[in-house]
Amino acid sequence: MIRVIKTPEVRLAELLDCAQRLFFSRGYDNTTINDIIGDAGISKGAFYHYFASKEALLEALAARMARDSVRELQPLLENPELDAIGRLNALFGGARRMKVEMAPHIRNTFDVIFRPENVVLFHRIDRAVTAVVAPILTGILAEGTEQGILDAPDPKAVAEMLLQFRLSMGPVMHEAMQQAKDGNIDEAANMLEERMRLYGLAIDRVLKLPDGTIEMAEKGFARALLDAN
Amino acid sequence: MIRVIKTPEVRLAELLDCAQRLFFSRGYDNTTINDIIGDAGISKGAFYHYFASKEALLEALAARMARDSVRELQPLLENPELDAIGRLNALFGGARRMKVEMAPHIRNTFDVIFRPENVVLFHRIDRAVTAVVAPILTGILAEGTEQGILDAPDPKAVAEMLLQFRLSMGPVMHEAMQQAKDGNIDEAANMLEERMRLYGLAIDRVLKLPDGTIEMAEKGFARALLDAN
Repeated sequence: MIRVIKTPEVRLAELLDCAQRLFFSRGYDNTTINDIIGDAGISKGAFYHYFASKEALLEALAARMARDSVRELQPLLENPELDAIGRLNALFGGARRMKVEMAPHIRNTFDVIFRPENVVLFHRIDRAVTAVVAPILTGILAEGTEQGILDAPDPKAVAEMLLQFRLSMGPVMHEAMQQAKDGNIDEAANMLEERMRLYGLAIDRVLKLPDGTIEMAEKGFARALLDAN
Repeated sequence: MIRVIKTPEVRLAELLDCAQRLFFSRGYDNTTINDIIGDAGISKGAFYHYFASKEALLEALAARMARDSVRELQPLLENPELDAIGRLNALFGGARRMKVEMAPHIRNTFDVIFRPENVVLFHRIDRAVTAVVAPILTGILAEGTEQGILDAPDPKAVAEMLLQFRLSMGPVMHEAMQQAKDGNIDEAANMLEERMRLYGLAIDRVLKLPDGTIEMAEKGFARALLDAN
């Protein structure tokens, strides 16, 4: 029998693949570390070599997803025909598309993240995603300010603030999902859409853009997100 | 011997007084539930009758402080000579004054709240304070929008968003306190002041007010806060 020697990077990627599959199929709460190591065929010691906890693994998974989706957006973000506003809309639009595409797979995980008692989990994931997205957003804001088409006095700090806005969507998402589960899907979609429109408006205003410049709630997005759940 | 019968409200207030004294003198981390019940002269059962945990007690304490400071601000907030912008500046200014006044007492507690590992605690306290402040802020935004001196399309949602901004100050506060502890107090005060100025700017812009309308960083505030710690 030939023993295949895998590099730590390959093992790590396989471990993340396994965990992702389990989280997406059973839900985060219903998956134990034992389930993951059983599926990945590794020892508990090997698991803890990579991650201190299930939460830390989820954080790494969120970071990987964020990196993957940024990589997918790269051609759009580097498109020389787009100005800073076009790039902003491409970035936010890409994040929305990713969420809708993922929604059916992450049914349970998604729900878990937004529960009030899981605020730590939510923040760990947010931190991982922010670490990937903040530098890109900072770059776009700096470029736009230089070109005089928007106004971000301190691009890095403004980027952090704008990303902070997202967090206020956490409780709103949770409420919308509860309403959708209770059968009030129209009401839930309207509420979510209204809050996303306001989120876009806040970004417009902070950057001194005309209201409605940054598109945050294209028709049907909230509905697609909630339907998938 | 006459046994004094205390109402549950009186007992609760005494319990909060005790906990506050201990948290302020020893720090939150260094105070146990046993310390608190020892000092308050009540049984563990009585403690758990009021609070499920030490965190829940701190949340109640934060809510009480928020209510007390709003009560102190009431005359200013109801001053008929102030317009909505004057009221906003009175509200935010009052919150700052309270922080500076409290800073020497809450030395340790303050520090604990902003540590990254205490994000749950931070959010519980934030939730308690938000519950007190959000309705007041909503009222001012509605009044100002009606009078046409600012623009908050959905006063309640905008109030929630503006309060959300505060949360982005958490990590900044933590960093500034670390820097101040390391002796770089000027640098720390400058960074904190700059971020508060930006926070005010973001509020101005979201409400369509000229930059600099909402005062968030009067000279010396950051320094006073950090010096006190």
